[in-house]
Amino acid sequence: MLGPTLAVDIGGTNIRAALVDASGTLSHRNQVATPPNAPGDMIVATLIDLLRNIVAVAAEPPAVVSVACAGLIDAIAGRVVILSNGPGFRNLAIAQPVSAALGIPCFLENDGSAAALAEHRFGAGRGYDHLVHVAVGTGIGGGLVLGGRLYRGATGFAGEVGHMVIDISGPLCNCGSRGCLEAMASGTAFATRARVVLASGRSPLLATIVGSDQPTGEHLHRAALEGDPVSRAEIGHAGHLLGIGIGSLVNILNPQVVTISGGLLVLGEMYFGPMRAALASFAYGPSSGVKVLLSDLGADTGLLGAAAVAMERTEAG
Amino acid sequence: MLGPTLAVDIGGTNIRAALVDASGTLSHRNQVATPPNAPGDMIVATLIDLLRNIVAVAAEPPAVVSVACAGLIDAIAGRVVILSNGPGFRNLAIAQPVSAALGIPCFLENDGSAAALAEHRFGAGRGYDHLVHVAVGTGIGGGLVLGGRLYRGATGFAGEVGHMVIDISGPLCNCGSRGCLEAMASGTAFATRARVVLASGRSPLLATIVGSDQPTGEHLHRAALEGDPVSRAEIGHAGHLLGIGIGSLVNILNPQVVTISGGLLVLGEMYFGPMRAALASFAYGPSSGVKVLLSDLGADTGLLGAAAVAMERTEAG
Repeated sequence: MLGPTLAVDIGGTNIRAALVDASGTLSHRNQVATPPNAPGDMIVATLIDLLRNIVAVAAEPPAVVSVACAGLIDAIAGRVVILSNGPGFRNLAIAQPVSAALGIPCFLENDGSAAALAEHRFGAGRGYDHLVHVAVGTGIGGGLVLGGRLYRGATGFAGEVGHMVIDISGPLCNCGSRGCLEAMASGTAFATRARVVLASGRSPLLATIVGSDQPTGEHLHRAALEGDPVSRAEIGHAGHLLGIGIGSLVNILNPQVVTISGGLLVLGEMYFGPMRAALASFAYGPSSGVKVLLSDLGADTGLLGAAAVAMERTEAG
Repeated sequence: MLGPTLAVDIGGTNIRAALVDASGTLSHRNQVATPPNAPGDMIVATLIDLLRNIVAVAAEPPAVVSVACAGLIDAIAGRVVILSNGPGFRNLAIAQPVSAALGIPCFLENDGSAAALAEHRFGAGRGYDHLVHVAVGTGIGGGLVLGGRLYRGATGFAGEVGHMVIDISGPLCNCGSRGCLEAMASGTAFATRARVVLASGRSPLLATIVGSDQPTGEHLHRAALEGDPVSRAEIGHAGHLLGIGIGSLVNILNPQVVTISGGLLVLGEMYFGPMRAALASFAYGPSSGVKVLLSDLGADTGLLGAAAVAMERTEAG
């Protein structure tokens, strides 16, 4: 590649950007708030302003822009299809207008796929060419690196590992199905479970911590850290369910490693201990020896993932 | 390739073999009973005899032997690892002794992976380079053709789609887990459900059909064909569960097509109707338009799959 990548991570709260060199070093970081409920053209204009501000002060001009964004992404057309960070993102073309404004190519990729490539090129998954990535936060997403390259499937939507059904009698999921992994083991699931625990009256400590707020997964975590056995059991059970889901992925795809990123990493062993135990029990035959590696890329996963997408796409010619 | 492939399909009942040319035309078919409970060296000797009998009368000498076999297969080492057609198959090296005896290369592949390649090269999946194959019979197996080539995963075990958990409260599976797709929607699951229906006394017709036999899925099917609503509902529910499992596969892998083969094809729309309805409901976003194609390769799937494996491996050099 001739210059650094101008990497972008579009999240629900902020749009972050930075220059990333081939070794994964970030510089010229900048960010703006994601315009709330703005129309698509305002989102794109905000993004282009942010990028121009970085280019204006860059020591070396970027060769390419690469954007990681939540939602169903048409990576070939560079367009968000649906279910992203707000209504303005629906059917929003990003790559074409950004490329036209900056005069360099622009790639767009799903954030789960980008995170998978970030782990493969810069993170815990370096050296492993068969890698399943699972991102556990408010929702559950993921990405697949198969045979050393990002696998997008037929139309770019591969890696939606949160929408694997693990319990046909489970709770409704945001996607409209029932018993998806996301509905049972994500931050959203914790908020639901916190409400159930509160309503049951089984945890006075959780009730005190929540007070008059809307109950969240953070409340459940704080109660567990302060010794509440009910909250701790809820987090452990969700970890167990995550392990069953990852076990299914391992049986289907036989990866060398599963890498895990996302906000729920903060839960530590009270979540990942039961996850590992369930995985060891549910993964089949020789696949049960698969490695599970927790990400150490932190908040830069999206930017590094966007950069890794650009590197793979430009290396491939 | 210089000559035809000597293709072999090792099943629980018979070992079948034939010459297969590049267009998928079979000739010189022959078969022997799979030696029941025989030690490994006797299985290999029986196989080599069968192959020598074909070579002796072949118009054109085969360039390569290729074997499809149930179980966990180490395709690189050409060895059955575990869980195949009997105890003699455990840790059985097949490719090396067959190659030594016949003086040509020998490949060994899992039957689900071979069936996926059979559909891709010769069957319903021709022209689709992102294909998930599901084989529904006594068990549920499968295989993945991703980006136009067989995807084996890190160590050759990819494609075990029957061991995806769809119900954490479901029945025990032969693999030791609980609620696997195989435990809930396969021929084995039908036999279990037939016993449950009999014990419930809800189906006098099924009781008459089973008589003093061990209940099987065939009994359930016959009762359904004769108008028994209880048996028909059981088959429909299993089809519904299969559709949920295939929906998860579609969300994870975003294939163009799902091809289906196996003994349960005989159930027709009473099984595949509910399957399609569940798939349309559970597949996520744009993936819900995936095509489902029922195999028309019949009993030759294994032989054609073995041939397709050899073609892919020799084309790749």
